[in-house]
Amino acid sequence: MDARKAFYDRARQIFDLAQAQQALEWDQEVMMPPKGGTQRAHQLATLATVLHEKVTDPFYGELLDTLEDTADLDGRACADVREARRNRDRAVRIPPKLVAERTEACSLAQMVWMEARPKSDFAAFRPHLEKIVALTRDMAEALDAPNRYDALLDEYEPGMTEARLRIVFNDLRGRLVPLLKDIRGASRRPDPTLLTRRFPSEGQEAFCRRIVMDMGFDLEAGRFDVSAHPFTNGTLADVRLTTRYQENWLPCALFGAIHEGGHGLYEQGLDPERYRDPAGGACSMGIHESQSRLWENLIGRSLAFWCRYYPMLRDAFPGVLEGVPLEAFHAAVNAVQPSLIRTEADEVTYNLHILLRFDLESDLIAQRVEVKDLPERWNHKMKDYLGIEPPNDGQGVLQDIHWAAGLFGYFPTYALGNLYAAQFMEQMRTELPDLDAILSRGDLRTVKTWLNERIHVHGRFWTAQELCQRVTGQPLSAEPLMRHLDAKASATYGL
Amino acid sequence: MDARKAFYDRARQIFDLAQAQQALEWDQEVMMPPKGGTQRAHQLATLATVLHEKVTDPFYGELLDTLEDTADLDGRACADVREARRNRDRAVRIPPKLVAERTEACSLAQMVWMEARPKSDFAAFRPHLEKIVALTRDMAEALDAPNRYDALLDEYEPGMTEARLRIVFNDLRGRLVPLLKDIRGASRRPDPTLLTRRFPSEGQEAFCRRIVMDMGFDLEAGRFDVSAHPFTNGTLADVRLTTRYQENWLPCALFGAIHEGGHGLYEQGLDPERYRDPAGGACSMGIHESQSRLWENLIGRSLAFWCRYYPMLRDAFPGVLEGVPLEAFHAAVNAVQPSLIRTEADEVTYNLHILLRFDLESDLIAQRVEVKDLPERWNHKMKDYLGIEPPNDGQGVLQDIHWAAGLFGYFPTYALGNLYAAQFMEQMRTELPDLDAILSRGDLRTVKTWLNERIHVHGRFWTAQELCQRVTGQPLSAEPLMRHLDAKASATYGL
Repeated sequence: MDARKAFYDRARQIFDLAQAQQALEWDQEVMMPPKGGTQRAHQLATLATVLHEKVTDPFYGELLDTLEDTADLDGRACADVREARRNRDRAVRIPPKLVAERTEACSLAQMVWMEARPKSDFAAFRPHLEKIVALTRDMAEALDAPNRYDALLDEYEPGMTEARLRIVFNDLRGRLVPLLKDIRGASRRPDPTLLTRRFPSEGQEAFCRRIVMDMGFDLEAGRFDVSAHPFTNGTLADVRLTTRYQENWLPCALFGAIHEGGHGLYEQGLDPERYRDPAGGACSMGIHESQSRLWENLIGRSLAFWCRYYPMLRDAFPGVLEGVPLEAFHAAVNAVQPSLIRTEADEVTYNLHILLRFDLESDLIAQRVEVKDLPERWNHKMKDYLGIEPPNDGQGVLQDIHWAAGLFGYFPTYALGNLYAAQFMEQMRTELPDLDAILSRGDLRTVKTWLNERIHVHGRFWTAQELCQRVTGQPLSAEPLMRHLDAKASATYGL
Repeated sequence: MDARKAFYDRARQIFDLAQAQQALEWDQEVMMPPKGGTQRAHQLATLATVLHEKVTDPFYGELLDTLEDTADLDGRACADVREARRNRDRAVRIPPKLVAERTEACSLAQMVWMEARPKSDFAAFRPHLEKIVALTRDMAEALDAPNRYDALLDEYEPGMTEARLRIVFNDLRGRLVPLLKDIRGASRRPDPTLLTRRFPSEGQEAFCRRIVMDMGFDLEAGRFDVSAHPFTNGTLADVRLTTRYQENWLPCALFGAIHEGGHGLYEQGLDPERYRDPAGGACSMGIHESQSRLWENLIGRSLAFWCRYYPMLRDAFPGVLEGVPLEAFHAAVNAVQPSLIRTEADEVTYNLHILLRFDLESDLIAQRVEVKDLPERWNHKMKDYLGIEPPNDGQGVLQDIHWAAGLFGYFPTYALGNLYAAQFMEQMRTELPDLDAILSRGDLRTVKTWLNERIHVHGRFWTAQELCQRVTGQPLSAEPLMRHLDAKASATYGL
């Protein structure tokens, strides 16, 4: 069938171009000399143009039409056509003029944001954010979904809706806020300051590399480097993780590496026969984040994990953790403390940071709130959810680059990741009842294999919600995460 | 003028895609994990396809037609249109089926070559080379030049012809062969074995980096790394050099780094206002090689250069060069010795290796010789030119990958580089009469500036031969190189 072959040829070209972009982006963050930025920007802009041309090419649309009218497509081809159509529809529906205008506005806004944040100057940033919000509303409108915010969500979490999110997130908030109050009032308290002792970078690098390898990350099919902002990129046989080392704050690199390792295992675990096809890639941003969070928090902060690795950690930094028992270390890496900055937040408060952003950005898109009122709303919600208030906008509404970059509908995937992770983990414990024993002997590959088979290899054959239902037998719910957080609070704070 | 703007937009897209290819190739050689090869091959194949589509797109052809009919184009735009047309004509004239067939044949031939070379098994390689030669003849035919070999040369050295090469190369051979005989009979002999003492890699790395920086290579606009086969890639603000270290053979990394540094300075020295335009890049492969050879041989093996750097070299390797006077070291790095392998050849015999390959490949393309007779011809010419004979085909006709890769018309640019370098150097000495004093005080930037102004900044506004005439007032000639080699033979061998 010629249309089928032509479709796969074109779809794989589109995939290859996107991978080329990723490789150049990795190089830009990790290897590129300081003056190379302008040239690299030209290359990436041209690749983006070519990619857009390939996706919107009428010939590609005709191939999709033909295949959609074909009765005897197998399930795999159906999924590929569905994903290609979704991708193409988004590209075709947004007028090129709007794309260009929004790209330019975001580029300018990010420069203004970089100056405004350290000066806590929301007034300078406000007109730029207003423009981006207006253009983002136009974009959502063009995407022609029943709900504008849903149209934005769909880019990162296909099939998820604002209404569904609101139910789950409200449930979550209703239980997180009281839990946090209880934790703040607890008399037993861990001592996280022991994580601020001096841990030399070389020791951290060797230890992190060891754990990532134990997780089953294949360094013959990937790399592990340093960058200012840690990330994972690439896929299957060339997956690259980065981290950064803070000598006086062990969790930064340690849990950062485990987190990126979780992303990396997902990409290495895709089906090698399908990874270049439209439904062969990772399922959604939420599922991707579930893999990093599962490893970082549910494995990496568990007592069973540290039964195995704490003696090795002490050996890696001779004398530094002298007299610190395993239990004290484990409590320290699980300390909960409301703080102003999302990226530094613990497992409990992190979700509240996300819920706040979801509330505000969905209100902005629906015009229920105006940009000018954002700082006040932000501070009010911080008080409400976390019990603390930012002393200035730099540590408040201005802290994240996401909105300046035009990313609306993206924040929720961070909390979805935590929810899916806990739900998958409960299922894993049901299927592997001796999981703690497995972890205590450092057999992390058993976890990897479970995730490979249940999640990774399926790519985006199912939506995130279908995958969740299939793997756990239940739709997405806040229950598993809350059970996990309650249990941890009980262990750490004696609640 | 709209056609003009559209032309430059498209030409710069083509440039950006080519640069993206280079960046991915650098990554492949220097950074990519071992298993990443297949994915990278897909990405590079797709980029090559897209690049070919952009170059052969009828719209681009129409833009060129329009601009060629425009009376009031300035010289710069004329040069850009001329270069774009040259590039497009090559792409349009070769039938896609022939491109695909030749690419596949070369890919297969290179795999066979890799097995055949260590086994000296020419018989296994022969049918593959026969196929490549036949397809290359077809390609040359399609390019529709008066002479088939000229059509091949044109890709690497625009405007150069087989006839012109033959005159210069015959002249060169007529003087190199007797010079080599004299050198072999000389009673004074340098001792190159002192270069086989142990020079630790770290010391070599620091010393090479120092020299490359002294040459004026900007490491904020480039990198200096290690790879199995040294090369330079990228342009202007992102130029990457590689080298490799042999602890028991100092010249490998040392002259390798200076050589690549010469290529790198050329790329960094292009006109920043024009580098993305068709006539903004490097002039030709021969001119490129002239820059690397000028630095490697005419600067880097000069006595004046080592007056400055020999004391630093001795400091970099304490004790290793104890008791070796400057003159003995300088003689050692200028030792001449016929050898079987081109890449290990000295300044005199290197050119004879190239002349031999030019003779054979031009004969192959013109069907004056058949592939089956190649080993015999090779060995006969080695005896004739260099006075030695390969004990087997692995060290003879099978030693280079070039023909397996379909590179015909490429070898001559190596010798052209040496010729242009010597001719430029004579001119530089005329304009900078105190050059030796400049070099002895390590003021390498003066050389860089001279090359920047005379050669680099002009890109490919002129052909190589026009550039040579403009810079030196003379057409290409073997005289300057022979004067240089005669003088060096006199100093080193007392001839």
